[in-house]
Amino acid sequence: MIKVAIIGYGNLGRGVEQALKQNPDLELVGVFSRRNPETVQTEGAPVYELDELEAKKETIDVCILCGGSATDLPVQTPAITKNFNTIDSFDTHAKVPEHFANVDQAAKENQTVSIISTGWDPGLFSLNRLYAQSILPEGETYTFWGKGVSQGHSDALRRIDGIADAIQYTIPKNDVIERLKAGEKMELTTRDKHLRECFVVLEAGADPDAIKEAIVTMPNYFDEYDTIVHFISAEELRRDHHMMPHGGTVLRTGTTNETTKQVIEYNLQLESNPEFTASVLVAYARACARLAKEKQFGAFTVLDIAPKYLSPLDDATLRKELL
Amino acid sequence: MIKVAIIGYGNLGRGVEQALKQNPDLELVGVFSRRNPETVQTEGAPVYELDELEAKKETIDVCILCGGSATDLPVQTPAITKNFNTIDSFDTHAKVPEHFANVDQAAKENQTVSIISTGWDPGLFSLNRLYAQSILPEGETYTFWGKGVSQGHSDALRRIDGIADAIQYTIPKNDVIERLKAGEKMELTTRDKHLRECFVVLEAGADPDAIKEAIVTMPNYFDEYDTIVHFISAEELRRDHHMMPHGGTVLRTGTTNETTKQVIEYNLQLESNPEFTASVLVAYARACARLAKEKQFGAFTVLDIAPKYLSPLDDATLRKELL
Repeated sequence: MIKVAIIGYGNLGRGVEQALKQNPDLELVGVFSRRNPETVQTEGAPVYELDELEAKKETIDVCILCGGSATDLPVQTPAITKNFNTIDSFDTHAKVPEHFANVDQAAKENQTVSIISTGWDPGLFSLNRLYAQSILPEGETYTFWGKGVSQGHSDALRRIDGIADAIQYTIPKNDVIERLKAGEKMELTTRDKHLRECFVVLEAGADPDAIKEAIVTMPNYFDEYDTIVHFISAEELRRDHHMMPHGGTVLRTGTTNETTKQVIEYNLQLESNPEFTASVLVAYARACARLAKEKQFGAFTVLDIAPKYLSPLDDATLRKELL
Repeated sequence: MIKVAIIGYGNLGRGVEQALKQNPDLELVGVFSRRNPETVQTEGAPVYELDELEAKKETIDVCILCGGSATDLPVQTPAITKNFNTIDSFDTHAKVPEHFANVDQAAKENQTVSIISTGWDPGLFSLNRLYAQSILPEGETYTFWGKGVSQGHSDALRRIDGIADAIQYTIPKNDVIERLKAGEKMELTTRDKHLRECFVVLEAGADPDAIKEAIVTMPNYFDEYDTIVHFISAEELRRDHHMMPHGGTVLRTGTTNETTKQVIEYNLQLESNPEFTASVLVAYARACARLAKEKQFGAFTVLDIAPKYLSPLDDATLRKELL
């Protein structure tokens, strides 16, 4: 039995609690939160203050860190890795090397294991980029995201004066994906790959035309895209847009000689982004516990871990049933 | 530089020679064949008799075995693994455990490394089945093949009296795949998943109706499928059916709680099956040489090998560029 603690209880932490119920070889010790435990409503897991974590060291095999990449994980992952084996979903691509170095040092000095940047991008998409480009060295890799909710773009909309609430969907241009799969060579701009669709609830008296203009011209977030803006009621937003779907495609188109085209495609279609990410974290928590048992101390990413470490089945069964 | 020998020079061996040209860190030492070397036309590689292989031991890091799974590889892989690190594409699913045990013994006794059953199924499809079911433990995995040429079914057609030549395409039922992706639960029979399409050249005087009946009722090969039979000329067969396309889909549909559907899809669309399989073999040849350098002796499958071993890039570059 692998004993697991959840650190932080937002959407991701809640998803991990759910995912653990589908994995009978992993047992949830409890949720550790910075909030007052009495205010944290879990689906049954006991809740403790984060300060109590270290005292429970002997009862926990792996901590699954469910905080955010902006401020939580850069501090929490190295700190908690000093005492525990850890998993995180750190997803600030540009800062992965620095985060890896910090966590690796903490893990090696304290003989623990940490697997960083799990989830689906970074994570499963990274794996697929690596496999595909290693197998087809002559070719192009394309990553498309969506259809799905972008939290960052939704937040950007909500910061505009006159907007009461909003949600933004990133939508891949499927016709472009089909043309790439058919072998067409294309130089793609940002605008060519994705659409942005916004559902906006206005504050009383706000000017829709001015707000639409403010959205579509917003630098970095919307100006380089074709952006569709819908104005809806608060009631419609609540009713029709409470799910957190996401997904996307990693496409590698290559040639094995001058004329032979080969296409590798990996595709996720997710009704809940946080629940799926949580399921990836839990599979890698199993891998983390095994690496620790093998005393392979240090930091890892999904690129460093053999697929078999994710499965509850033994090697002989995997060869027999899955190969 | 990783020095590679090709053992056997059919379609797969020819594909490996091609693939090695796209991988500058691997160098081809030569092709080793049971045929008279003067009769083997390569695209530039020197050809040697298979009996000369052992004498070249010091100049070869990895042997890529390109023989067939029925009779060549069960004998060749364990035998050659006694002296060399090896890769094969053994694809008789039911006999994988026995083959693995034989090769593992040869490798461990002689301190070599062998990676068996690489390619795409077994191989990349196996990987994807493992990742997907480990991440979504509550769900179903479906494997579809095609559209592509089945060598076994084409051979079965050619053995029928009155058939001069023939080719058979396995065709997945895409509407079924779409319904599964949309979340429909289905109990699928063999007939529900694939169609079989045959292009047949008759011998002079053969009876088309009798031959069609012999095909569609053939046990194991065609009787459990909807089979379409076309009669064409030898000229049409040569002109329109000389490529060896293949591919397929591994689909995992699962739920992360009672109502949340999640779909993972892996999809290959290959204009040349042997050239793509060869490209997979070459990427795993790189992994094989590295495992040997690390003295991790024994037999492996794709399920046992961390993704990073396939890439010519170093770990820090992979984290920076692909994660």
